Amino acid sequence: MSLVVIGSVAYDAIETPHGKRERTLGGACTYIALSASYFTQPSIVGVVGDDFAQEDCAFLASKGVDLEGLEQVPGKTFFWSGVYSADMNERTTLQTDLNVFAGFQPKLPASYAAMPYLFLGNIQPALQFGAQQQMPGVRFVGGDTMNYWISGFREELLETIKHWDFLLINDSEARMLAGTNNLGKAAQIILDMGPNTLVIKRGEYGAMLFRKDTLFIAPGYLLEDVFDPTGAGDCFAGGFVGYLAERGFDLRSGNFDVQDLHRAVIYGSVMGSFCCEEFGVDRFRTLTRKEIDQRFEEFRRFTAF
Amino acid sequence: MSLVVIGSVAYDAIETPHGKRERTLGGACTYIALSASYFTQPSIVGVVGDDFAQEDCAFLASKGVDLEGLEQVPGKTFFWSGVYSADMNERTTLQTDLNVFAGFQPKLPASYAAMPYLFLGNIQPALQFGAQQQMPGVRFVGGDTMNYWISGFREELLETIKHWDFLLINDSEARMLAGTNNLGKAAQIILDMGPNTLVIKRGEYGAMLFRKDTLFIAPGYLLEDVFDPTGAGDCFAGGFVGYLAERGFDLRSGNFDVQDLHRAVIYGSVMGSFCCEEFGVDRFRTLTRKEIDQRFEEFRRFTAF
Repeated sequence: MSLVVIGSVAYDAIETPHGKRERTLGGACTYIALSASYFTQPSIVGVVGDDFAQEDCAFLASKGVDLEGLEQVPGKTFFWSGVYSADMNERTTLQTDLNVFAGFQPKLPASYAAMPYLFLGNIQPALQFGAQQQMPGVRFVGGDTMNYWISGFREELLETIKHWDFLLINDSEARMLAGTNNLGKAAQIILDMGPNTLVIKRGEYGAMLFRKDTLFIAPGYLLEDVFDPTGAGDCFAGGFVGYLAERGFDLRSGNFDVQDLHRAVIYGSVMGSFCCEEFGVDRFRTLTRKEIDQRFEEFRRFTAF
Repeated sequence: MSLVVIGSVAYDAIETPHGKRERTLGGACTYIALSASYFTQPSIVGVVGDDFAQEDCAFLASKGVDLEGLEQVPGKTFFWSGVYSADMNERTTLQTDLNVFAGFQPKLPASYAAMPYLFLGNIQPALQFGAQQQMPGVRFVGGDTMNYWISGFREELLETIKHWDFLLINDSEARMLAGTNNLGKAAQIILDMGPNTLVIKRGEYGAMLFRKDTLFIAPGYLLEDVFDPTGAGDCFAGGFVGYLAERGFDLRSGNFDVQDLHRAVIYGSVMGSFCCEEFGVDRFRTLTRKEIDQRFEEFRRFTAF
């Protein structure tokens, strides 16, 4: 079932120990939508400049991504460049040019209003809130945020996530949001903020899912080689929410098999792992659902006891 | 079946954000043996000074630990003191007095020579090698090492682990030993050094087990509160090797259910997690096998999908 994804669409310059790309399609919304496209039809809301390439639109469309909500305006597309350390555990941002993204005000096409699922990528909480209000009948909504909003826009953020079904953040963000180092305690504090489901991403170490009555801990997939980790967290989000949409989950009712919710975390991990295998979004040019399901089964084998 | 454990027996002074202990029973051999005692009968080989308390001997004996190989000599017992950072991710050593441990030469009592299992705690590789030679009929042997031996005694270490069935080290040690950052590649390099089984500990993130034909990845247990992480890695080792001994594993033949080997890793994680719940070895004063098996089942629930 259709999933609306809101967030940044960008061009990235990336350097890893494996090589360099001067300009490659990127942005959280792009990664989330591409990843989710293997499970559901994503409809994106974003803004790009007049430099946005027709071939990138064509690539997204070829994956079934609905581009009606992708606004094109005069100016340049959001540009980010970064370089990874030799062990790829550290990333240094070299340049961030918000360009047309600086004035981003999510406007949902009328055709999106009745769609059942919404994922709010990491943008200013008030904009996330405004976007959610344009989908009054949404069946589940969740999203991402980051340290910048947690520390500088706390009240606005709390007011926003209060209305979410799930929050999907990384471990340092969870600790910062909850104000405690213990992840178990942090999770309980965050679940009291509104979301019924919290997913904490831990990079190469996997992910955890918390609900009041559930805990699931998934280890990370062990890649032969990490080519480029850019977008892996967003692809995790896309796999997680895409699978929920595919299965028609209703997180509010709790009326589902909890192990099926755990499987959404594994699909998230699977998608994050594929993302790292090539530069930028390139892995999605060839990836098939069959490969995804095979890796899901591989996860079963290497975690069974 | 009986397991010989060789390594340090010590007194520790520990400070964590939860409090302080001026002098508490410690040492790798102690933790390994206490942890393994829930699965098998450990027979320890170590050295202590004339300050070693009778009540500590009595405590070990009460857990079924065979102390015939614990030599008592004039002088002071190995003493270590350390302090943990507020988030407990960093540990600073304040003092290391090797004392009588400086002259430790493992001498196995005659009654140990025919025992089937041997775990070599982290001591100089040549001493580990010498100890192994005193058990010519050993059915499986494995052990631990550390960065000090990996960087400064590399040839001696390689000559030693060549004869081991398993090596059990942490992730940074595995990377250092193999000379590569990628853990999957590091594991293959290490398996070519001799051991048929490699267990990589990742602290709060769990552990991985590698054989030529197997990969198992276990997430860490999420503790409500980490009281004192001292000894957790050694308790992991004790749970892992203790379960193998209990089950009568023959790692060389490969003639076992691989998921049963995975269960040894989970029992290792369970024992490491219990260790953190109180200061030093204190959790083992009350811990029961029933609690251990309950936590093992809890692991099943929070990892099932």
